[in-house]
Amino acid sequence: MTAPAAKKRLLTGDRPTGPLHLGHLVGTLHNRVAMQDDHDCWLIVADLHSLTTRSRREQIGELPELVHEVVLDLLSVGIDPERSTIYLQSGVPAVYDLAILLQMLIPVNRLRLIPTIQDMARNAGLNDDEVPLGLLGYPVLQAADILMARAEVVPVGGDNEAHVAIAVELAEHFNDLYGPVFPIPQAMVSSTPTLPGVDVIPDGSQRKMSKSAGNSIRLKDSADEVAQKIRTLKGPGGDATPEAVESSPLFAFVDAFVGDKALASALKYDYLRGKVRDEAVHEAVTADLEALLAPIRARRAELKADPGRIEEIVVDGTIRAREVAYQTLNKVRDAMGLESLWNGLVETTQRRAEARKRPY
Amino acid sequence: MTAPAAKKRLLTGDRPTGPLHLGHLVGTLHNRVAMQDDHDCWLIVADLHSLTTRSRREQIGELPELVHEVVLDLLSVGIDPERSTIYLQSGVPAVYDLAILLQMLIPVNRLRLIPTIQDMARNAGLNDDEVPLGLLGYPVLQAADILMARAEVVPVGGDNEAHVAIAVELAEHFNDLYGPVFPIPQAMVSSTPTLPGVDVIPDGSQRKMSKSAGNSIRLKDSADEVAQKIRTLKGPGGDATPEAVESSPLFAFVDAFVGDKALASALKYDYLRGKVRDEAVHEAVTADLEALLAPIRARRAELKADPGRIEEIVVDGTIRAREVAYQTLNKVRDAMGLESLWNGLVETTQRRAEARKRPY
Repeated sequence: MTAPAAKKRLLTGDRPTGPLHLGHLVGTLHNRVAMQDDHDCWLIVADLHSLTTRSRREQIGELPELVHEVVLDLLSVGIDPERSTIYLQSGVPAVYDLAILLQMLIPVNRLRLIPTIQDMARNAGLNDDEVPLGLLGYPVLQAADILMARAEVVPVGGDNEAHVAIAVELAEHFNDLYGPVFPIPQAMVSSTPTLPGVDVIPDGSQRKMSKSAGNSIRLKDSADEVAQKIRTLKGPGGDATPEAVESSPLFAFVDAFVGDKALASALKYDYLRGKVRDEAVHEAVTADLEALLAPIRARRAELKADPGRIEEIVVDGTIRAREVAYQTLNKVRDAMGLESLWNGLVETTQRRAEARKRPY
Repeated sequence: MTAPAAKKRLLTGDRPTGPLHLGHLVGTLHNRVAMQDDHDCWLIVADLHSLTTRSRREQIGELPELVHEVVLDLLSVGIDPERSTIYLQSGVPAVYDLAILLQMLIPVNRLRLIPTIQDMARNAGLNDDEVPLGLLGYPVLQAADILMARAEVVPVGGDNEAHVAIAVELAEHFNDLYGPVFPIPQAMVSSTPTLPGVDVIPDGSQRKMSKSAGNSIRLKDSADEVAQKIRTLKGPGGDATPEAVESSPLFAFVDAFVGDKALASALKYDYLRGKVRDEAVHEAVTADLEALLAPIRARRAELKADPGRIEEIVVDGTIRAREVAYQTLNKVRDAMGLESLWNGLVETTQRRAEARKRPY
C-alpha cells in the first residue's frame, strides 16, 4: 500500500485595490472554490504588490478597509478558511528576504520585455521615467510569494502567465546553482472568456470588466443595483447577424450566466428573428444572476453579523504562512551557504565563551 | 546647560571579496580610525552586496574566510570594537524589508544612469543581457543599509558618491511621502589621491591598486613580501622632468609613505639630478612603510592568538545592528501605515477572542 498522495499546494490571490466583481467570479473565484476539494489552496492578499502603483500614504491608509472587503468577497463566494489559507503578504517578512536574494538571479533585460509591466505602468499613469524599480521587480516579488509557499500550481489569467514563467525560471536557476530547494511551479491557465464591462462608463466605450474602469457589477452590489446595471447592456439591435449576437456584451452575459443552455440558444434565435428585444434578455440574465448572487449575499450578511471573523481568518492564515515561509527561507539560506556563514560565526563565539568559563 | 551633542553616526564598509591593502589603508582605513574619536562608527561587512557579482555556491562558500580576513584587517589597523560597530549585512534581515519598500520609491531610469553599476558589471565580466536586477538595485540596497542604521555621515571614495546621492534622494522622498523618519545622510568625500598598483601584473600596465587586479600590497603581507613588491616600482628613469617624477608610481609611494616631507623632497631633487636611483628610493619607502606596518602586523598576531575573538566581535556588532534596524523598520512601517494595517487585524482578532470568553 502506498500513502495517499498529499494535495498539491496552489497559490493565487488578489491585490487589495477594490471590490471583486462578476469578472472575478467567472474568471477565477468559481475555479478557486472548486479547487479547494483536491488542492491545498493559498490565497494571498497582495498588499505589497499594490504598493508598486499605490504607494501614497492615503492610498496605504485605505488598505485595512480594502483588505477586509476583498477577504469578505472571497468568503462570500464559498472560499472555506478551514481548507484554504488566506494571508496578508506584508505580514510574512521572509518574502522580502527571498525577493532580494532572487533579484541576484534574474537579468534586468529579461524583466524589461514583460508586457504586463508596461501595462501596469500605463494604467497607473506612469511615464517611462517614473516606472519604479519595485514595478520592474514585481514579477520577482510574485515569484518570491510562489516559491516561498512552495506552491506547485498557480492559476492565472492569460496575462499573468508571463509572471509565472519568471517564477519557473528562478526556481530552476536557483535549484541548478544551489541544489533542489524549490518545487517547479506550474501555471494553470484559465480558459474562461473575459467578461465585458457594463456600459456605465462616461465615454460609453466597451471594455473588459475591471475594478479601475468603474464598469463592474460588484459581488457586494444589491439586487436593485445588479438589475439596473444589467439594463445598461446593449444587444446588437435589429437585423443582427449571429456573429453580432455572439460578440455583443449582452449575449456575453447570457453565455456566462443563463444556466439553461437551451434557453440561451432560444433567446439568441428569437433575438435574431426580432421576437425578443434587449429587455427580455435583461430579465432572463438578471433572474439567473440573482440565483447565483443571492446565496453570496446571504453569506456576506452572515459574516458581517460576526465582527472580527474576517480579521481572525487573515491573522490565522498569515501565521500559518509565516511558518512555511521561515522553513523555506532557512532551506534557501542553507542551500546558498548564508546560514552556515552566520551559524559558523555564532558557534565560534559560543565555543569561545565556553572556553572562558573553564577553570585554569 | 544643554546636553552634550550625541556623536553623529557614520556608516561605511567593505564587500568581503579579498584582503585589504595599502590602497584601503591610505584611502579609507586611516580615516576610519581617526573618525572613531568623534563619531559613532558603523562598519558593514557587505556580504549581500558581494552576491550581486559573486553568487555561485563556491563563491559564497568562501565568505566565512573572507569575512574573518576583512574584520581581522580592520582590527589590525586600529578599529576599536568598543567604539565601532562591525556587523554582517546578511545577519540583519530588516534591511531586506526596507530595500523592497525603497524600491517602490525610485525610478528604474534613475538607476540605469549610474556609471558605477556599469563598471561593476564590466568588472564582473557581465554583458548587457546578464546584468542582474540585484546589481541595478545595488544602490538601493546600499541606501537601505545607510538609512536602516540612521547614519548621518557616509565617507566615500569619489566613485561611490553617486550611491550616497541615491540614499539622500530616497530619504528625502520617503520623508516627504510619509513623514520625517530618516536623517538625511551626508557623503564625506575622501580627498586622498588613489594609490597606484605595484608592477607585478603580467601585462606590466600601471593601474590603481585593487583587490581584483592582483597588484596590491596587502596588510597581511610579510616584511619580505612588502620589500619585494616595493622593489618592482619604477621611477621615471634618467633625464626625468619634475612632472614625470610627480606622476611616477614610485614617487606616489614616496608621497604616501615617506613621513619626513623634507626627505621626500630631497629624494625627488636628487633623483632629478641623477644622484639617487630607484633602489635608494625603494629603501626609503620600505623603511617608513615598515614603521607603519609593523604595529599592524603585531596587532594581527595578537588577534590570531585569541581564537574566536573576530567572530565574537561580528556577532556582538550584528546583534547591536539588528536592534537599531528593527527600531527603524518599525518607524518605517508605522509611517507608511503598514504597521497599523497588521496591528489592526491582530487587535480586532484579540477583541473577538475576548468577547467570546465573556459569560452569557
